[in-house]
Amino acid sequence: MERALHLGVAGATGLVGGEFLALLEKRRFPLASLRLFASARSVGRRLRWGAGEIAVEDLATADPRGLDVLLCSAGKRVAAEQAPRFAAAGAIVIDNSSAFREDPAVPLIVPEVNGARLRDWLAGARSGATLARGGIIANPNCTTIVLLLPLDALRRAFGLEEVVVSTYQAVSGAGREARDELLGQARAFSLGEPETWRHYDRPIFLNVIPKIGDWVGADCFEEVKVVRETRRILGAPDLRLYATTVRVPVERCHSASVFARLGRPATEVEVREALAGAPGVALEDLPTPRELARREEVFVGRIRVGPDDGRVVRLWIVSDQLWKGAALNAIQIAERIAADGG
Amino acid sequence: MERALHLGVAGATGLVGGEFLALLEKRRFPLASLRLFASARSVGRRLRWGAGEIAVEDLATADPRGLDVLLCSAGKRVAAEQAPRFAAAGAIVIDNSSAFREDPAVPLIVPEVNGARLRDWLAGARSGATLARGGIIANPNCTTIVLLLPLDALRRAFGLEEVVVSTYQAVSGAGREARDELLGQARAFSLGEPETWRHYDRPIFLNVIPKIGDWVGADCFEEVKVVRETRRILGAPDLRLYATTVRVPVERCHSASVFARLGRPATEVEVREALAGAPGVALEDLPTPRELARREEVFVGRIRVGPDDGRVVRLWIVSDQLWKGAALNAIQIAERIAADGG
Repeated sequence: MERALHLGVAGATGLVGGEFLALLEKRRFPLASLRLFASARSVGRRLRWGAGEIAVEDLATADPRGLDVLLCSAGKRVAAEQAPRFAAAGAIVIDNSSAFREDPAVPLIVPEVNGARLRDWLAGARSGATLARGGIIANPNCTTIVLLLPLDALRRAFGLEEVVVSTYQAVSGAGREARDELLGQARAFSLGEPETWRHYDRPIFLNVIPKIGDWVGADCFEEVKVVRETRRILGAPDLRLYATTVRVPVERCHSASVFARLGRPATEVEVREALAGAPGVALEDLPTPRELARREEVFVGRIRVGPDDGRVVRLWIVSDQLWKGAALNAIQIAERIAADGG
Repeated sequence: MERALHLGVAGATGLVGGEFLALLEKRRFPLASLRLFASARSVGRRLRWGAGEIAVEDLATADPRGLDVLLCSAGKRVAAEQAPRFAAAGAIVIDNSSAFREDPAVPLIVPEVNGARLRDWLAGARSGATLARGGIIANPNCTTIVLLLPLDALRRAFGLEEVVVSTYQAVSGAGREARDELLGQARAFSLGEPETWRHYDRPIFLNVIPKIGDWVGADCFEEVKVVRETRRILGAPDLRLYATTVRVPVERCHSASVFARLGRPATEVEVREALAGAPGVALEDLPTPRELARREEVFVGRIRVGPDDGRVVRLWIVSDQLWKGAALNAIQIAERIAADGG
């Protein structure tokens, strides 16, 4: 039975924070109350909500009591400090950072893929009709979420032996500074002025940079996250998954070129049926990121089987990484909590 | 013994034509004379050459006699008409289009990879000290050339069982119109004016489009060219090669994410040695297209072996597709003809 929730949004003034507010409104999220949190320097700002405004509170010093759920997109370091504080006060914190994703006690959830894990966790946290205690749920990495919906559909239908993925990731995945850096470079270039950069070590305009996040051995951190989180959510610790993550001069929506070797041969018709029937997935002949911003689905196109081996499937995947890759996935988790009776 | 050549450049006013002239000068190509050809609408233009200028001739009506070599970048349809006319008049036409690449009688050459095939063909065309008759040599597709240098190095050292490649291709690969379309959109966007497009069916600025060329079944033509030409040049008609070709908003230099399954396990040291020793290949930690324009090498970085399977190698490849992918490769063929005594 759905219950309206006392909801908080942490990182409300950031890129993902703005998407939280847009989606709460778009999806008519059942709200009993809404509080907004950000860093100290945003305190005093008032953000538009419905017909009115809500004053931003300092996440670090705000009273954590009284929230059912906190949607947290405040960065890894801040989340590591603040999420436990809000959880101890009784909130379920759905955290968008990588701070808790590798903690085996913290569920890492894509509702369409491992919603059952969320149900079990909620049952364990429950006492009678309401939650007895708070806790932390981790929202996976944006690229992981976007890949998982079609990969899980293939895995359920045919099994999955090996996946090779190369990504084409939008700058907004790195936050507002990176987004503004790209647009600023485009403007400077067009006006014949010198381009500047700080987030990346070179221009991203008219460029592609095959490294996202810090180095972790021969991989970059984004690749490590995609591999570890995908294996964990699928419960497939030995899945052969090879990721190369690349930043491209796109403002919004991540794309990925995927090669998958299935457990058994399939026809193109079977593959299309499996994908078309997967929750959250939409087929599109030629999905491209600029045209699919602010859409909720993971779009899959360029579906090819073979040609010589019916176990080889190739896909081109596009999805709004600020929505399904971040804010929307977290809100879908919160919706399940609300539907579950809170 | 090197001989100076009577050289022609067809398509001299185009993007690749300009690169031909820049590279002939940069590489001090042994010229006995230089003629420039373009379409009728460019006749009367004079292009700078050294301290002087050369008047552009109409390719369709110009006297084809007297040329040793014609470097041709005039498009597929024009090449299909004009290359045979110049060849019949005694020139060796090195054609940059796809018009002749699938003709088994026409050598398809990347000098570092199958230079022996060029030597044999020249020997067949020779009579005594000079060429007895003209002929046509095909310059491979730009992406094919760029991929082939490192792939051939891996193949020679370890064998090659399977290759999965996803590309990140610059708009200048589609010619001047596509290049100007990207830069025009960046300018319009930055000034708040409406963007326009004609070459592509949607904006390429802030976008990526996973289709290059017309559809050929489930593939696009660029993918077909990469697969067919690579197999032909390597003499490996059964090589399992899976290509996904994607246009990105980059002005110049193609990039590619490559997954290769070798014939036998290798260590990272062995792979690096094989690549570092390959002609035309340069190792670079993090090669990116914008920084590597107007460089002659194919740059290879992000070299990863495994982690669990020593037969799995991943590479990130960047090269100036107007140079090694087009004009430079053709000029290197012409240089071998000159070195061979013409």
